[in-house]
Amino acid sequence: MKKIMNEAGNIVEEMLQGIVKSYPELIHRVADSRVIAKNEKVEQVGLVSGGGSGHEPAHAGFVGNGMLSAAVLGDVFTSPTPDQVQTAINEANQGKGVLLIVKNYTGDILNFDMAKEMAAMDDIQVESVVVDDDIAVENSTYTAGKRGVAGTILVHKILGDAARKGQSLAELKELGDKVVQAIKTIGVALRAATVPEVGKPGFELAEDEIEYGVGIHGEPGYRREKLQPSKVLAKELVTKILADYTEKPKEVGVLVNGMGGTPLMEQFVFMNDVLALLEAENINVTFHKVGNLMTSLDMQGLSLTMIDLKDKDWREALISDVQTISW
Amino acid sequence: MKKIMNEAGNIVEEMLQGIVKSYPELIHRVADSRVIAKNEKVEQVGLVSGGGSGHEPAHAGFVGNGMLSAAVLGDVFTSPTPDQVQTAINEANQGKGVLLIVKNYTGDILNFDMAKEMAAMDDIQVESVVVDDDIAVENSTYTAGKRGVAGTILVHKILGDAARKGQSLAELKELGDKVVQAIKTIGVALRAATVPEVGKPGFELAEDEIEYGVGIHGEPGYRREKLQPSKVLAKELVTKILADYTEKPKEVGVLVNGMGGTPLMEQFVFMNDVLALLEAENINVTFHKVGNLMTSLDMQGLSLTMIDLKDKDWREALISDVQTISW
Repeated sequence: MKKIMNEAGNIVEEMLQGIVKSYPELIHRVADSRVIAKNEKVEQVGLVSGGGSGHEPAHAGFVGNGMLSAAVLGDVFTSPTPDQVQTAINEANQGKGVLLIVKNYTGDILNFDMAKEMAAMDDIQVESVVVDDDIAVENSTYTAGKRGVAGTILVHKILGDAARKGQSLAELKELGDKVVQAIKTIGVALRAATVPEVGKPGFELAEDEIEYGVGIHGEPGYRREKLQPSKVLAKELVTKILADYTEKPKEVGVLVNGMGGTPLMEQFVFMNDVLALLEAENINVTFHKVGNLMTSLDMQGLSLTMIDLKDKDWREALISDVQTISW
Repeated sequence: MKKIMNEAGNIVEEMLQGIVKSYPELIHRVADSRVIAKNEKVEQVGLVSGGGSGHEPAHAGFVGNGMLSAAVLGDVFTSPTPDQVQTAINEANQGKGVLLIVKNYTGDILNFDMAKEMAAMDDIQVESVVVDDDIAVENSTYTAGKRGVAGTILVHKILGDAARKGQSLAELKELGDKVVQAIKTIGVALRAATVPEVGKPGFELAEDEIEYGVGIHGEPGYRREKLQPSKVLAKELVTKILADYTEKPKEVGVLVNGMGGTPLMEQFVFMNDVLALLEAENINVTFHKVGNLMTSLDMQGLSLTMIDLKDKDWREALISDVQTISW
């Protein structure tokens, strides 16, 4: 294992310090916690997300005006504890309640739910939206149902814009559930991630082999085969996603998300192939995003996310300006 | 070699198409060229940069209001041709002349200079600023003198802000030369980049080995040794950079730049160590940036850049808002 780090067991703490020291004008750490919150205080519904570390810039990179109020960081690939989530809820609450955006993993669901109950005892109104955008497989290593992956960032963005525009907690919960239904993601891995405390890749792929449908913690996908050209990968991923919509979308947003070890050059080549396929399908792409947003440490690979933009407001929310580290 | 691509020989063309199709509201391709230009036309001095591809998001990702007017893309790790640079100059020229920002590589210097002469024949005023921020070695595989690396992005940012504020070509040239003097960079590699048409890493490092001072095309550094903790790497790079200033800076900006294959987590851990060292030196850090800005394909490693912020305007320029894909 080659990583730039000190003690593996201290990597999240040191990363967290590095993040807050680098962007003091935008964010701060809530004292004695693993919570990163925005400096700006606005009377609006608070938005909290988080999960295991190792997916940077998610989620701390999306804290700021127009996106999240606070992000809570667990250990690498490990859910944050309920008391940490509760700290984030307290920080995000400006008297209008707090919405939790949770990726669908058993540990996250459990701990965020527990924090919700703890907050209710403090008379803070809390709702949650569970993101399960990964259509690759039903149930998985850490998940009942579908996994929550890169599409979560689009939920942050759309709900973040709606929250600053003054939507209520109930409205945001309803919007969030609708948006999640419209988002579908599927990924492909060329090389697995190496967890610092483990020291070797989570799974082995042969020198010429790829795996379709892997999760962001190295959870198994649905097929291994020899590495294919980008066009072939794009065809497979686009076809699977479109087949999963009950009605073929007319207008979509597309996110190509790098997993941490894949250069932008390859992500743009892949995006080019995806856009050619969608054009051939007469699907209008009115929002695009390419880059490392929801990574899996140093995993080589990428994911494709589509959102059915049936509501015009959603596109407006996606292209609205934000002040964050990484959007 | 595992890469998401189609034909290796077509990778730059497909990437270019992917970029312009993804951000049509911001940038466009100049017809029949390898030039990406901003859509917005403002009467100001044009700023043009570019060089070989493989350093994404540099330079196309920095085209837009407040940074570059146009970027010209060569083949992977290969200088763009003079006629392509000339096309970029013509596109960027709004009647106030054009400034070229060139990384110090023999091929780039030659071709950008030739384009400058061609533009002079068309009565377009052109000046150039050569960036040679890499203090690791004097002279190198493709370079006479020092190499131009990640610090170039800070030059884009400061000159981009000055240009939109109405500085003249002569003023920008003078400012650029001053800014370059204040910027110093040094890098470290854990794994070399693989050029798509070559198919194997540019150099080999043992499983526990790193190289200090490598360039962004795999040019040799100054020492190989066993992988060290982040703190030790930070100490080496910070010490070298500070020793290179004739007068110890009081206030600096710091850029930690990922090389393409290094996750953000590690970049933030390293930044944390750098900031502790600078604090111990009583050096005030008033600008921070962490991320993959000037990469070397899939190279694993990072570079540290410092800029002596002796002029207050420079920090203001660095933190000013821009509309680009990747700043």
